[in-house]
Amino acid sequence: MTDSFHMDPEEYRHRGHEMVDWVADYLANVEDYPVNSTVAPGAIRKALPAQAPEEPEPFENVMRDLNDVIMPGITHWQSPNWFSYFPANSSGPSLLGEMAAAGLGVQGMLWSTSPAATELETVVVDWMADLLGLPTAWKTAGVGGGVIQMSASDSAHVAMVTAREQLREQIALDKMVVYASDQTHSSVEKGARIAGFTQVRIIATDDQFAMDVTTLEQAIAADRTAGLTPAFVTASIGTTATSAVDPIRAIAGIAKREGMWCHVDAAYAGTTMTCPEFRHHQDGIELVDSYTFNPHKWMFTNFDCNLYYVADRKPLIDAMSILPPYLRNEATLSGEVIDYRDWHVPLGRRFRSLKLWFVLRHYGAAGIRHHIREHVRLAADLATKLEADPRFELVAPHPFALVVFRHADGNEATTQLADALNESGKVSLTPTTLGDVAAIRVSIGQTSTKARHVDSLWSMIDQLA
Amino acid sequence: MTDSFHMDPEEYRHRGHEMVDWVADYLANVEDYPVNSTVAPGAIRKALPAQAPEEPEPFENVMRDLNDVIMPGITHWQSPNWFSYFPANSSGPSLLGEMAAAGLGVQGMLWSTSPAATELETVVVDWMADLLGLPTAWKTAGVGGGVIQMSASDSAHVAMVTAREQLREQIALDKMVVYASDQTHSSVEKGARIAGFTQVRIIATDDQFAMDVTTLEQAIAADRTAGLTPAFVTASIGTTATSAVDPIRAIAGIAKREGMWCHVDAAYAGTTMTCPEFRHHQDGIELVDSYTFNPHKWMFTNFDCNLYYVADRKPLIDAMSILPPYLRNEATLSGEVIDYRDWHVPLGRRFRSLKLWFVLRHYGAAGIRHHIREHVRLAADLATKLEADPRFELVAPHPFALVVFRHADGNEATTQLADALNESGKVSLTPTTLGDVAAIRVSIGQTSTKARHVDSLWSMIDQLA
Repeated sequence: MTDSFHMDPEEYRHRGHEMVDWVADYLANVEDYPVNSTVAPGAIRKALPAQAPEEPEPFENVMRDLNDVIMPGITHWQSPNWFSYFPANSSGPSLLGEMAAAGLGVQGMLWSTSPAATELETVVVDWMADLLGLPTAWKTAGVGGGVIQMSASDSAHVAMVTAREQLREQIALDKMVVYASDQTHSSVEKGARIAGFTQVRIIATDDQFAMDVTTLEQAIAADRTAGLTPAFVTASIGTTATSAVDPIRAIAGIAKREGMWCHVDAAYAGTTMTCPEFRHHQDGIELVDSYTFNPHKWMFTNFDCNLYYVADRKPLIDAMSILPPYLRNEATLSGEVIDYRDWHVPLGRRFRSLKLWFVLRHYGAAGIRHHIREHVRLAADLATKLEADPRFELVAPHPFALVVFRHADGNEATTQLADALNESGKVSLTPTTLGDVAAIRVSIGQTSTKARHVDSLWSMIDQLA
Repeated sequence: MTDSFHMDPEEYRHRGHEMVDWVADYLANVEDYPVNSTVAPGAIRKALPAQAPEEPEPFENVMRDLNDVIMPGITHWQSPNWFSYFPANSSGPSLLGEMAAAGLGVQGMLWSTSPAATELETVVVDWMADLLGLPTAWKTAGVGGGVIQMSASDSAHVAMVTAREQLREQIALDKMVVYASDQTHSSVEKGARIAGFTQVRIIATDDQFAMDVTTLEQAIAADRTAGLTPAFVTASIGTTATSAVDPIRAIAGIAKREGMWCHVDAAYAGTTMTCPEFRHHQDGIELVDSYTFNPHKWMFTNFDCNLYYVADRKPLIDAMSILPPYLRNEATLSGEVIDYRDWHVPLGRRFRSLKLWFVLRHYGAAGIRHHIREHVRLAADLATKLEADPRFELVAPHPFALVVFRHADGNEATTQLADALNESGKVSLTPTTLGDVAAIRVSIGQTSTKARHVDSLWSMIDQLA
């Protein structure tokens, strides 16, 4: 502590080394923690003072409370025994990139406010377009483009606002219809509401939990008959409940015919598109209007880092751009640069491309493919065991690394098994329901999950069932 | 590099120590860098390969390119000679908090997905409500509440969506009117468009750049006569161009009478409310519906960390909440916990409260007040010098730490002076225009800006004028 209250660079250096050791120790030992926190609601609040400190506190006190008060309330998403939701992975290179970005502390709202933040973002979103096998026209040299946003929810919302604005002069908002399947992520229904749509059709799915195209066609026809206008449809590659894949080509073809926006949510499964053998799941992708994918789920890049691609950047920028005097600058006015603040709702921007660049260079494309294929293989192995055992049933296909199963004795047995697994403290899994069927999701994809973790999960399932 | 491609905790520890040293060296030397980057558009993109690497690269290569390719494209927001825009401050404790949050890598979307992330957020937003002198009812024990969002743009947008949803059943969206002043931040106009409003009235300001309440009243009356419904008004405490303060009590009173939502944007100046002598600027705050303030500007907490408070949390949660099966959990269903994903658009959430907690404990309220008062004093000193010199004119009051002036010889001389200052490489300032008047903004508030930096800026202004 200097007498000016600030932490000077030398104290930051000293404390920073301590914090790196704290994080390294955490990552080395994370496997030993009970995966889910078991604190009671309110316990952490009660352990902290009701008022901010008036005087500065020694940093030792902060570290003490981090260990004693905060850590018991942490659920360990970075545990290799994390099988819940989807992963929210970090990795060494990502943490280092985040550290550099925070240290530089630039605001990349405009090209001119830190050119490297914008240009590195352009480079990595173009790299990723190639790695994912996305259309060349979506790269910056084409008419489309990619941008880093916070979350897939933001992308779905922005896509809907862009679609709405394209139709707004001709069609009343209350006459526009949004379509999603009963398995589409809730962010689409939420985004539709926030974007002001009042007509949302939830389309039934088939026995693979993929959108039923015939039902979609019928819904569209009924809406046309009622004088409404189809405006927006979301197709998913890897739904949240079961990682189901909607028929992209068919849905995008319908969208083209109807003049509506087609958005693809590949938030989780997008990572697999780095491996050519998975790209058949995105067949028809060249027909869609927008696409979102989260490196912050399964690609070893810590939250937040969501990629949003559009086939045509003009309607997006038209919908999102405002230029007040204090943001005017020569570079923007020249038209030679990209100002990514015109590609989403917020103005301010962190230097998020840095961590993604660190990850891509550390792993190389080969390293990412290696780990993805390994996770997919582990999921397939687990599915084979579950399928071969009469006590269990798979309730959905497992095209990626999510296995969804139930106890053959029904919902109560399934729920009891899920509770017993979660209460063991040794693993974390998400129970869910598909229609009336209780099921257990096993998402295999945490950065450091290896065969032995999945083997050990299988032993627990076997014993507790 | 291990043969599994991952960076193991020990290599992270080694590289992390290097990165802490890199950041500490940067912060120790940031004053010596030319403040604004001078790279040409496209230069950084050209220096990087067009394709992602196929094979892993040694980390040394990444660090080499960070230094050689990225650093020339950095504009140094953390320089004490940063007088542009508003500050986007970081500080040692904030960087350490960010490092811990990234290392833990939790997703705080629900209470249950990491209770500490939610409960610490509740604690720090309540602490901040008291530090800022906000109404007690806005704390979590009351009917209101605070939440950490990404940016003031997000808050303005969310406030408008909430206001819209409250009226939607009675009033058509095209009949709802949003009011802002000609000095309101552009995020309000952008947010209104994104929220789907088509009627936005830009209200003239007085000679202090504060919203003219008479003009607001006239606009409302005209809209009522035309059959429209006033829905939303933004009042600013510290506008972007000049840090002007709108009359909160008068505007909030009009909003109450008209049944419209009143949102207060204190993104920049909110920090000063930690000092009681500035709170007269928020007189009437107990009458408004929502309030936003950015610790990530002037409160030593690195981006992103935006606080959004509402007087009543129910309409916010009603507008933002969706509960699909895979997010259902006992804690949420019990109603005993807060799920902050229902307080904004995105689902995913970083553990942002950690850095704010680190900052508040390291500085204490006293430390924050000390630095804010010092920056305000430095701004007042500079204003006194400019005012006493016949070559210059102040063009606006300086209630906080932003001084806006012009060259007495007019727009051309002002623009030339701004260009000469920026091209020196020694400082960064933002030129702007107020109506037809060119002006120069001097924002004094970077974490490490001291008297000698402002003295040196004054010498340059004196010499170059």
